[in-house]
Amino acid sequence: MSLKLYERTDCPFCWKVRIALAELNLGAEIYSSQLGEPHPEVLRLSPKKTVPVLLDGELAIWESGVILEYLSTLSVGSTLFPDDPGTCAKVRLLHQYSDSIVGPALRGLVFARRSKQKAEWDLKLISQSEAAWGNCLEWLQQSLTGQTYFGGEFSAADCALAARFGVAEAYGAGVDDRFPALLQWFDRIKQRRSWGESYPSSFI
Amino acid sequence: MSLKLYERTDCPFCWKVRIALAELNLGAEIYSSQLGEPHPEVLRLSPKKTVPVLLDGELAIWESGVILEYLSTLSVGSTLFPDDPGTCAKVRLLHQYSDSIVGPALRGLVFARRSKQKAEWDLKLISQSEAAWGNCLEWLQQSLTGQTYFGGEFSAADCALAARFGVAEAYGAGVDDRFPALLQWFDRIKQRRSWGESYPSSFI
Repeated sequence: MSLKLYERTDCPFCWKVRIALAELNLGAEIYSSQLGEPHPEVLRLSPKKTVPVLLDGELAIWESGVILEYLSTLSVGSTLFPDDPGTCAKVRLLHQYSDSIVGPALRGLVFARRSKQKAEWDLKLISQSEAAWGNCLEWLQQSLTGQTYFGGEFSAADCALAARFGVAEAYGAGVDDRFPALLQWFDRIKQRRSWGESYPSSFI
Repeated sequence: MSLKLYERTDCPFCWKVRIALAELNLGAEIYSSQLGEPHPEVLRLSPKKTVPVLLDGELAIWESGVILEYLSTLSVGSTLFPDDPGTCAKVRLLHQYSDSIVGPALRGLVFARRSKQKAEWDLKLISQSEAAWGNCLEWLQQSLTGQTYFGGEFSAADCALAARFGVAEAYGAGVDDRFPALLQWFDRIKQRRSWGESYPSSFI
């Protein structure tokens, strides 16, 4: 088996895949691109033309959620998707929530601050994004209640949310004291080997 | 087991779920809403506030892709996700392509024509949408090559794409003669029991 991953270091969809690779003890050749300069293989292989793209022989997987499902089938022993169908559905929903609700909530924060001096920041956009992020934290705290990780055991939902929380923190939106369960969860995430191995080499 | 499905008859995400229920021989109580008037349970259960929502006891699944994965675990014998990991990844990618690329391609056609007299149609929007739909058909024909269904056997990818092709046809964008393999595939879909059982009661 020889996996290739085309990615961008600070993209949360790619970061999620790197966490999954580390958690599943899978190796991959990693081809990193800069923002706005996708690798030619990404343009050839993906109808969306976006990273991440995983290549396993002739099989090209160009969607991060599908990559995590596939990687889980390659690993011996560990999996990111619980066996119990109901718990697995909850993990997939949390993963979807991270991609389609948390991601857009944080977009304003990232766009307002990325590659800009403080004097140029769009403060209204930042404030709207912080409010949306706060709503996500409320929903997520309810979903975590009483559990160590979002799917009970560490799962694909934690991979996705870890990368989003990491991006939020890097762009100045941490988790505040109203959300003690989420703070503890994020501390647990940061103590895992996969966090250190996957942390972005830069935020552009 | 007592499943409840909250849905809207002509929504392609909901239509896909009805096809899946029929293919897997699963029954559900169906609660249909009109466009813009979601059922109170949808507002309560889904962070996105959109249909479809599947309820199985206390478990609420508010994302159509996750619903199909879950329904496949309930069915005895049939499944919509192939056992082979590579083939299953292809099915999930096609399903994703249907949701995130074909759907937006057709959106202009639907919005331009829905609830409007012909004299009011935005012809530029229709033309752009038809061009985007044509690009999808080219990509899909390549993905189907030599196969009876998109995943070899009938799968979740066919559920998703059947509903999209149905919406396209209802809004005046059929499959033209440049795409004989897709025409034959769509004919096969229409001959299945699930097509008749799931067909929308109206297009609003």
